[in-house]
Amino acid sequence: MSDTPWRFLLEKSLNYHRNIREARYLQLATVTQENRPANRSVVFRGFYGDKDCLKFVVDNRSEKVRQIAVHPWAEACWYFTQTREQFRFSGLLNLVQADNADLALKQARQASWQELSNSARLQFAWADPGKPRAEDADFAPPPPPVLEPLANFCLLLLEPMEVDYLNLMGNPQNRYIYSRNDGWSSIEVNP
Amino acid sequence: MSDTPWRFLLEKSLNYHRNIREARYLQLATVTQENRPANRSVVFRGFYGDKDCLKFVVDNRSEKVRQIAVHPWAEACWYFTQTREQFRFSGLLNLVQADNADLALKQARQASWQELSNSARLQFAWADPGKPRAEDADFAPPPPPVLEPLANFCLLLLEPMEVDYLNLMGNPQNRYIYSRNDGWSSIEVNP
Repeated sequence: MSDTPWRFLLEKSLNYHRNIREARYLQLATVTQENRPANRSVVFRGFYGDKDCLKFVVDNRSEKVRQIAVHPWAEACWYFTQTREQFRFSGLLNLVQADNADLALKQARQASWQELSNSARLQFAWADPGKPRAEDADFAPPPPPVLEPLANFCLLLLEPMEVDYLNLMGNPQNRYIYSRNDGWSSIEVNP
Repeated sequence: MSDTPWRFLLEKSLNYHRNIREARYLQLATVTQENRPANRSVVFRGFYGDKDCLKFVVDNRSEKVRQIAVHPWAEACWYFTQTREQFRFSGLLNLVQADNADLALKQARQASWQELSNSARLQFAWADPGKPRAEDADFAPPPPPVLEPLANFCLLLLEPMEVDYLNLMGNPQNRYIYSRNDGWSSIEVNP
């Protein structure tokens, strides 16, 4: 069990919402090559490593992969509807592609692929995302292998450097900012 | 009724989710002074004007106000849980402060203030957001006037220039990108 201070709060929220599929959807903001914000929903796929990275999976044909190459900083915003909590995770993205040299990351990428549902895996064999709509046949490929990821499948890690936690239940509401330097520290701030 | 093509879809989603409070929460991404993304939940407060701007309210003591002054571009991500639709609104922010010279905007700011609940209005009289936590007494101010907004109250308008609409219900999913030039045009793209 991690001793990262915000992680206990997040695990509690996840547990509370465990039967709500969309509670694992959060919004990941990046900066485009034109210095504009981009923002889309991603699915939380668990934690990675001793830095409590958040795991996502992405297709290396998607826009965000090109953005990350230039601007690796991200902020993810995660709102939990039943407990009225918001987590904002600010930190660095690490894109783990097929050619990653780190063995542990290589294995984590493979494991994330294997943990996907069949239909989620199939989407990585679909026609190029964001391109003009292809024929129906381009969305009916043969099922990709279950063990070995397709080349365009990436694991995406967000390494949190700051976590802004807001709980709307209180009156006044409660808000804490957690920052990582040598270790994690926190400060209570006004909502 | 607007003839903006994406607006019909959005009104339909809003109507479908009309009894779900948090369906009016979306995530607004901006770029910080350090060229990093920032991302937080905001509450949709309706439409404004013939450009179908999305309305929000903000406190001019908040971080995002300083970000907008440097980087007025934003992307808002709005996910509707029951219909499994995502709207991404990319466009320009216009912050309407107390000293705005445009009469229509001045009135819209005042109307937005009057439409807030008492408790929402009260928060604009709370201690400075993001500063070290103040005393309880600083969160128990006298109720502000109902008719005239406090000076730090701002109306925030997002003028959409591009809308990326994704519907996860289909198999394959359906995705359209709407772009504004002289008028709105759309293209169907791969999900």
